[in-house]
Formats: sequence, C-alpha cells, structure tokens
Amino acid sequence: MTRELRLRLAGIAAVIAATLAMPALAYDGLVEKKTFEMPSYVTVGGKTIKNVKIGWESYGTLNAAKDNVILICHFFSGDSHAAGKYAAADAAPGYWDSIIGAGKPIDTDKFFVISSDTLVNLSTKNPKVVTTGPASINPDTGKPYGMTFPIVTIRDFVNVQKALLESLGIRKLHTVAGASMGAIQAFEWAAAYPDMVERIVPVIGAAEADAYTIGWLDFWGQPIKIDPNWNGGDYYGKAEPEAGLALALKIVTIHARAPGWADATFGRKQADPAKSVLDSWDGKFAIVDALDKAGAARAKVADANSFLYLVRANQLHSAGMKGSLEEGLKSVKAKALVIPASSDELLPPYLSERAAALLKKQGNAVELVTLEGNGGHLDGVLAVAKVGEQIKKFLAQ
Amino acid sequence: MTRELRLRLAGIAAVIAATLAMPALAYDGLVEKKTFEMPSYVTVGGKTIKNVKIGWESYGTLNAAKDNVILICHFFSGDSHAAGKYAAADAAPGYWDSIIGAGKPIDTDKFFVISSDTLVNLSTKNPKVVTTGPASINPDTGKPYGMTFPIVTIRDFVNVQKALLESLGIRKLHTVAGASMGAIQAFEWAAAYPDMVERIVPVIGAAEADAYTIGWLDFWGQPIKIDPNWNGGDYYGKAEPEAGLALALKIVTIHARAPGWADATFGRKQADPAKSVLDSWDGKFAIVDALDKAGAARAKVADANSFLYLVRANQLHSAGMKGSLEEGLKSVKAKALVIPASSDELLPPYLSERAAALLKKQGNAVELVTLEGNGGHLDGVLAVAKVGEQIKKFLAQ
Repeated sequence: MTRELRLRLAGIAAVIAATLAMPALAYDGLVEKKTFEMPSYVTVGGKTIKNVKIGWESYGTLNAAKDNVILICHFFSGDSHAAGKYAAADAAPGYWDSIIGAGKPIDTDKFFVISSDTLVNLSTKNPKVVTTGPASINPDTGKPYGMTFPIVTIRDFVNVQKALLESLGIRKLHTVAGASMGAIQAFEWAAAYPDMVERIVPVIGAAEADAYTIGWLDFWGQPIKIDPNWNGGDYYGKAEPEAGLALALKIVTIHARAPGWADATFGRKQADPAKSVLDSWDGKFAIVDALDKAGAARAKVADANSFLYLVRANQLHSAGMKGSLEEGLKSVKAKALVIPASSDELLPPYLSERAAALLKKQGNAVELVTLEGNGGHLDGVLAVAKVGEQIKKFLAQ
Repeated sequence: MTRELRLRLAGIAAVIAATLAMPALAYDGLVEKKTFEMPSYVTVGGKTIKNVKIGWESYGTLNAAKDNVILICHFFSGDSHAAGKYAAADAAPGYWDSIIGAGKPIDTDKFFVISSDTLVNLSTKNPKVVTTGPASINPDTGKPYGMTFPIVTIRDFVNVQKALLESLGIRKLHTVAGASMGAIQAFEWAAAYPDMVERIVPVIGAAEADAYTIGWLDFWGQPIKIDPNWNGGDYYGKAEPEAGLALALKIVTIHARAPGWADATFGRKQADPAKSVLDSWDGKFAIVDALDKAGAARAKVADANSFLYLVRANQLHSAGMKGSLEEGLKSVKAKALVIPASSDELLPPYLSERAAALLKKQGNAVELVTLEGNGGHLDGVLAVAKVGEQIKKFLAQ
C-alpha cells in the first residue's frame, strides 16, 4: 500500500467513524490538542498544586477493551506533539512522525497513541503547550509561582499522565515509549506502575542520572542564574533573562549533537569570511554562529524558570526512586527495547547499557539495539526511523 | 638506586656544579622561576606587541652541544611549573612531576627540560606566572589592554617560546611534549619548525580543533560575556566578572573529567543531607557543590579576558595553519608518540587517532598509546605516569 493510499484510506476511515458517531479518534494525520485538568495534585515531595492542567493529543482509535494504548513521553524541550499536524499548513509534523502513523512502526491503525505535555514544560510561550509550572498563576496569590512552585520529579510527570489516562478509562499500557527525557519517563513508568506497563521503548535515555550527568545538567541551568534579569526567578512582566536562557539552550543544542555532525555541517568554516576570527572579536566560526541563532530562537518560546525545574527533575531521576537503581528497577515487569544512539554525547550509550544490564540480570526480557549514526543524541529524534523495524517487531511480541 | 639516594646525589651534583661555576642548571627538585623578555613581537595576525615577557623554568643541565633539550608546553589553565618545587615547603610539585626528574621517564640526569608560561596565560593573579596578555599594561596607553590586545594563536605561543630557546643558544629540540593545549603546541611546533623538532609527545591533545571542539570552547567563554561585570573586557580596577569566570572554570573542570570518576567520587550523594534536593533550591548534589567550589577557587587566580583569548587561540588551532590539517602536517619531520586518554570527554581519543593516522599516512614514525583510566582528560596530567615507560622508551629511540 502506498503512503498516499494509506493516508486516503485513513481519511475515509475517519469520516466513517465520525458518521457512525464513534469517538472521533481515528487518525488522518490531523491532530487536535486537548486539555486535561485536575483540581489538585500532591507531589512526590508532599506539596499540593491546585488547578493542574496539561495538554494532550492522540493518534489512532482506542479499542473497546482499552488495551491498545501506546503512551509517548516527550523530551526535555519537547511537548505532546509527537506526530501529525495541527493544521495541514503546518511547516512540519510532530517530532516522531517518521515512526508514528498509519502503517508506520507505531501503527495508528492498530494502536491508540497518546502523548501529553509534562508538568513544568519548557515551552510556555508556544500557544499549543498546556502545562502547569513556575510560569503559571498561583491561585493562592494571583501571581506567577516563579521559584516558589514545588520541585517536581519525573514520577510527578508520570503521576499526572496516569491521571489523564485514568480519566479516559485506560488501566493498561501496551507500551510506553519516548526519547531522552521521554525514555526517562518510560523507565519511571515501568518501575512505578509495573502492573500497568507491559512494554517500554526507552530511546536515547537513562534509568538514572549518574553523577556526571547531574553535573552537566547543572551547567545547563547556570547561565540563567547569572543573567541579572533572572532576579531569583521573579521576572514575569519584566525584562526576562533571555540572554541566559538562550545560552542555556545553546548548550543543550550542542550537547545533543556530535563531532561527526559538526564536521559535516560546519567544519572549520567562518560565519562571515569578511570578519576574520584571527583579526577581530566580531569574527565567528560558522558552528558558533549557528548555535547562537538556535539558542536565541529556542529561547523565544521557552521559560527560564521552567528550564531550571526540568533540570532538577532530571537530576533527581533514579527509576523507582529507591535510593539505588538496582532496588528501583526490581519492581519492573515490562519487556524492554532499549535504544541508545552510538554517537550520543548527552546520554551516551553506557547509560542505556547499564539499565539494560540491570533489567536482564533480574530476569526481564530486554533487547538492546544501538541506533548507529553521526548525529549525536538527536539521532534518537531525527533518525529514529532507522530502528523502526525493530520497534515494530518488538511491539508485536 | 632508591629515589632518596637519587635525590641526594642530584643535590650533591648541584652543589658540585655550582662550585665549578657551571650554569646552575643541575636539578635537585628545587626550581627557580625566571623571566624572558622581548622588546617587541609581531603576531601571526600581523600586530606588534611591545615589551613581551614570559616566565620560564628548567630542570636538569643543558649539555655543551645544547642538544639534550626537552620542551614542555603547558595546558589551558596551566603554567610553566611542570616539575619540582619553588620552595621545599610548597604543598605540591609541578603537574608532571611524576614523569620529570632524576631517573624518571623524562630524566633530568640526561635531559635539560625547559618549560615556559604562554602568552595570554590564564593565571595572571598567580605571583609566579609571568605573561603578556589582555591584563598587561599597554605601553602606548598606560592602561591594561583588555580586549584590544591582539588575538593570538598557538603559533604565537610557539614563536615566543622559540625566541626564549634561541636566547639560550638552543637550535634543536630533542622532544616537545605536553598535555592538552601543551600537546596542541607540540603539534604546532613540529609543523612550524620541522628542522628543529626531532620528537613530539602530544598527550590528550589534538592536531586541529574540529567543529565540535570549536563549539564547546565557545561555551566555555560565554558565561564570562553574560556577566555584567565583564563590561566588554573593561573591568580592571573595578568589580571583576568573578561569577562568569567561576562558571567558565566549572565547565572546564567537569569537561576535563569523566563519568567513571564522577560516580566513584560523588555518586548521587547530596552535599548536605539536611538540605534536600527534592525539597529546596538550597539543596545541592555533592558533585555540583564540589564543582562550584573548584570553579570559584580557580577563578581567584585567573583573568576573565585571558580566558577568552585562550579560547580563541585554541579554536584557531590547526597544526601548520594551512587551511587543512592534511596540508598543515605535511612539513612535520618529527617522530611522534601520541597519547590519548581512554575516558577523555574534552579532547577524546578520536582527535589523537586522527592526527596519528594522518602522520602515519604521510610516512612519519608514529606510535599511538592509549592511557587507560576513568579520570577523563585529566588522566593526561594526574595519571600520566601510567605511560611513563612508553615515554622513556620513545625518548631513547
């Protein structure tokens, strides 16, 4: 079946489904963003957050038994938009569209695929993102929380997702999959709710933030804190710490790439040969210029405090939250397909390998498949189709 | 011969040498810092710097033929102090003392070992360091140069070292060795002055800064630039950009380490269990606290503008400065012992391997020995004795 034909048939199926007054969940490539609300939520740290809202979207149809659900968790700077388009004119589809859709490895003809924004989502200025975090209004004060918002953990992200799923009557997850912080959530899901999670596909992830990762994550956030506009997190309605946030996002951008990519894309070229890097401080190498622009562009939709909350949530990550990863993973019942990227500099393969080895040692069914490439960490997003067949097979087991 | 006996004999030899009115260069573990001056120097970029001064020190005795010279070049945050102590009460000897000394792999009983501070040396507040850079007084204005100091390159570091050597009548280098930016200088020496350099021992280095390294080096310097006290480099005599510089040096510190080291040293421990990382922003992970303290301590002796000049010099590095590394290395005649560190995250083994492969391809005698360990880049400084035997053998060839 050609892709065109598939899309057309999916479109027809959607029309039929709508005509029959079934839930309008059939997936024709167009996606609707929805909002889930909880009157209050108590964090792992014991703090109550009122009026919790997160955005979500889905692709495919929930079956009657409600047992064909695949949950996709998003990465650090991502959101719920894993596949499809909100409007036909959108420049690009969701980030994992290459593997989610009709006839694709995560096949929306079979599965009900659902994805949500996390708590403290970074992209508070993206109008499609719905989240609750430091940029939200504290109902008790009528002002943005800033750094008084409770510190949250990956488990808190999972718990709010679980409440969303339960609101849809879903009690079983065929699979939890995700890239990077999405993989991190998949590990946490399997450890926290072992009877609910049948499979996990953690891509470019880690079951625990090791010391080196904790140290690096700290640097990601530091430029925000030395930007005087940060002001201890109290900047809403004033000049924002844009320079610090842009620099933080530049670090994320290069950390998520790799030497082979940098050589192939920029080499030692200068941004503007007329401004020599030997003669003048105005001179810039091409890679520096590109990263400057990427950081600045990404900062436009992001919130600096939310960045710091995400850093802390990831530093606190140790699947199962038992003090040691070995203890934390003991509860896991899910089968796992663990997928590191060979050139990953951010969460390098040793982290996936460590998690896979622990799961294997305790008797879980585990496959480890390495995504080969030069693109670094981002290969787990941009080049994930390379391991599409392995994902498809794993989901059928 | 025991080390004690060796030291005692070296001491006696020094006394004899002094008595005989020979140059007082015999090495008894105590080192004298000296200053070399040039009335003016013209940079690779064509700018003239007046009153150039750099510090230097030596270990061992220059022979009559002046052909037993080993030049040691220092790393990014280092200085000339590679071995020995300035005073018996010094807390620690120079950074490569484990391999430089009487009977050691770089044997001061045989070799005259010399090391100098570079131009734009970082540690302008270390009273032992003598350098010329942005913190120096511009004789034309009577004020510190700041960012008006000419941009300098690794070749400029080499050229000033060459003038120092020539002032001592030295026309031949048995070996140029160094760690990190010291290795980078060794490559540049061999490419720039092939008839002068017989051997190079580049440890944890690179023959060229590739695009990814150029990008990361940029981040090292960025925290300085967003510190409002930096003020475009005009901060001398005013509040200095200490926070930015401390953060820059924190990044250098973690980049020079590795996951295995971080796990073994800190794990996921908290700095102060009474201040929980889950409950409060005052809570810190132990690794973050240690890096905070390291960065702050290192910043006390360092100069922010000099940091930026060092970043640019390293970004500009491509041995031979011919536009392509393959072209740049063509002139090299030296034998090379190239030593990457297996766990290096800063200048990872692929950079050493790339340089070694190019030299081998063009017919140079090259050995590649990998320093195995968990300490990261810093293994090339702290654990270099592990490859001491290989260095000793290579120097005898």
